[in-house]
Amino acid sequence: MRTFFWKNSTDEQRQAALKRPAQANKGDLTAKVAEILAEVKANGDTALRSFTAKFDNVELTALEVSSAEFAAAKKSVGVGAREALERAAANIEKFHVAQIPVNQSVETESGVVCERQFRPVSRVGLYVPGGSACLPSTVLMLGVPSRLAGCELRVLCTPPRKDGSVDPFILEAARLCRIDKVFKVGGAQAIAALAYGTESVPKVDKIFGPGNSWVTEAKEQVASAGAAIDMPAGPSEVLVIADANANPVFVAADLLSQAEHGPDSQVVLVTDSEEMVTKVQAEVAAQLKQLPRETIAAAALEKSLSIVVNTIAEAIAVSNQYAPEHLIVQVDQAARYKDRILNAGSVFLGPWSPESAGDYASGTNHVLPTYGFARAYSGLSVDSFLKQITFQELTEKGIQGLGETIEILATIERLDAHRNAVSVRLAALNQAKEKA
Amino acid sequence: MRTFFWKNSTDEQRQAALKRPAQANKGDLTAKVAEILAEVKANGDTALRSFTAKFDNVELTALEVSSAEFAAAKKSVGVGAREALERAAANIEKFHVAQIPVNQSVETESGVVCERQFRPVSRVGLYVPGGSACLPSTVLMLGVPSRLAGCELRVLCTPPRKDGSVDPFILEAARLCRIDKVFKVGGAQAIAALAYGTESVPKVDKIFGPGNSWVTEAKEQVASAGAAIDMPAGPSEVLVIADANANPVFVAADLLSQAEHGPDSQVVLVTDSEEMVTKVQAEVAAQLKQLPRETIAAAALEKSLSIVVNTIAEAIAVSNQYAPEHLIVQVDQAARYKDRILNAGSVFLGPWSPESAGDYASGTNHVLPTYGFARAYSGLSVDSFLKQITFQELTEKGIQGLGETIEILATIERLDAHRNAVSVRLAALNQAKEKA
Repeated sequence: MRTFFWKNSTDEQRQAALKRPAQANKGDLTAKVAEILAEVKANGDTALRSFTAKFDNVELTALEVSSAEFAAAKKSVGVGAREALERAAANIEKFHVAQIPVNQSVETESGVVCERQFRPVSRVGLYVPGGSACLPSTVLMLGVPSRLAGCELRVLCTPPRKDGSVDPFILEAARLCRIDKVFKVGGAQAIAALAYGTESVPKVDKIFGPGNSWVTEAKEQVASAGAAIDMPAGPSEVLVIADANANPVFVAADLLSQAEHGPDSQVVLVTDSEEMVTKVQAEVAAQLKQLPRETIAAAALEKSLSIVVNTIAEAIAVSNQYAPEHLIVQVDQAARYKDRILNAGSVFLGPWSPESAGDYASGTNHVLPTYGFARAYSGLSVDSFLKQITFQELTEKGIQGLGETIEILATIERLDAHRNAVSVRLAALNQAKEKA
Repeated sequence: MRTFFWKNSTDEQRQAALKRPAQANKGDLTAKVAEILAEVKANGDTALRSFTAKFDNVELTALEVSSAEFAAAKKSVGVGAREALERAAANIEKFHVAQIPVNQSVETESGVVCERQFRPVSRVGLYVPGGSACLPSTVLMLGVPSRLAGCELRVLCTPPRKDGSVDPFILEAARLCRIDKVFKVGGAQAIAALAYGTESVPKVDKIFGPGNSWVTEAKEQVASAGAAIDMPAGPSEVLVIADANANPVFVAADLLSQAEHGPDSQVVLVTDSEEMVTKVQAEVAAQLKQLPRETIAAAALEKSLSIVVNTIAEAIAVSNQYAPEHLIVQVDQAARYKDRILNAGSVFLGPWSPESAGDYASGTNHVLPTYGFARAYSGLSVDSFLKQITFQELTEKGIQGLGETIEILATIERLDAHRNAVSVRLAALNQAKEKA
């Protein structure tokens, strides 16, 4: 962990310190992903089967998970795991159900009623990565809010394991969320299937979920061709703010729980205590040795950063500039800093709120904006699975009252047909009046 | 206007009829825009001045509009226009102020408090096109909700006129919305300036507003490099549903008010009355001749479509499949169909609700999803200028209650450091208990 002293640095040095590493050079990834997308678009299920054979080393006949497979998964997960999944799902539901928005109706002028109504995105695709970790928690984070939003069709894609099955915890989580269909397809080919549709996989209106660089690149490519996606993605990251009284054991554990995600994970410590840096570094070194994913975490830590500031208020300002995906605030009375936090995905306050609480079970969503996107993007919520439609209805009185204003503005903009759409109506009302 | 009979058609024919024309082949637009972006990124204001000289035929010294120019604009617009702008702004404010969301706090378990709070996107860039129409209404549609959201810095870019000035109506609308800075920069170079920042134009966190194909391409390019934008864009469009009792004069006027936007505007009529098609076509022909923008509207109408269906319910289903930017429903008791409308940007109900009402002054926003994007995207609202941050704080009791669940789930996912972040805390609490 490199240490950076905020106080004696220029603005340029500060910006450089907070700059995330450039996303790894894509090399021929762009072309390779484009090829996969084109192939799936052209050849549907045949292409999915052949990419699954190539990348996942499995020859599949049925792409869709059968009800027998769901039943077997339910049996195999064990009571403890099922109860943990159910409890997490219940908390996620409690937090997300409160997000369901209310339709709104405003009479802006007499006879002019404007409304905003919410509708679910009809068909949604949920991607759950496989690879080095199996992630049933991600199934819950996508499955619960999409169910609450009322999406008509919810399709989940996840790569099969080497024996052609899907991890039973993933299937059990999908069952708990009442996902409609689960397909054994991963990588860029899964994104292509959801964007274009194949014989088996239905085309969806919006694609959600995290993934590796292939999935991220595929989401970007289908998005620039018009598909809707949840948000742009970069490596996962945490920024921990700790004061002199923070527990270095907790701080180190939190930094490591981010570092173990991948060698490109971003880990930043900001503290007003130089001593804390030393303590945390010692604790990180000690805890690191115990971890099965030691190599991954060590690689991430090599590029990590400790920043020494003068005050906790300054630490918050540094965090706002960085806009972290996860922000952990381990300082005295952490909650009093809430209002000052302007850019972050999800925030963990005080000593008893590890990031893992929100990653799994407290109720907040763990699909969050990375790479500084928290300046303009939000984490997943029920809103992500809804869209808004506005309605308006003017009465005769309404158009008579507002008509001239519209005519004046259309005249200013030299859009005569816009003006005329009002004028023909006002003329009709005048004629009717004269007749009466 | 081509007529299509829904009843006797196959699904393929129906899909083909509703298919929007492919976006015009970009040709070398992609490369040209990329060049402009790179040039502005490298040379800042110098590049902006040189592109403004090239594309707008103006040599500018100051890029920013001065307070003297604002004062002169205010004087020149006249009372009638100012009052119309003020009334439109007041209605837009009334409708949008009701959208300001409320923070939310949920105790999902004893000692586990999860919150969602809203924060403005700090710096926003608002683009207002120039070209064939000057659009002060767009200033209001971007300016009012961004003000209500509380964005810290709101920057507007719009191309200068040939004499180096900005249209006074645009400046007056910007003053009404208390926009912080207005720059005389248009086209792809304006989007580049907002995305990267120059000596004069500040870099922003999110870019909003409609534009021509250069602006749209520039927004797409900066978005795939990580800038946030409001929504993807395509040609403007309307779908009008009319029953046998609709007034063909109104229907024709509404179709034309869309057609005059541009030769690529999409205009669709759906009706359960074949006679209505004939009546509307006659009216369109008659009204078209009166329009100064006749050539533009005629070009759009050439590619337009009338669809004959059996029932109004079927017409709504056709509209849901098309997902129009604007939907006008001129049928008996139009409001009763509201719940069935699933995909649309903004909906106009009944005979007295022309699209121009919402384009200008009723209160709804006119920046809306086009090209079928209404299936997954919403029109602009206060939400577009906000993002959400989640917070959580667990008490000792909270982590003691939820800790085991988190540990089980982290174990399933084989993320030991995630589990350890909980375990070290539970251990500390146990030690403290034993000591006591």
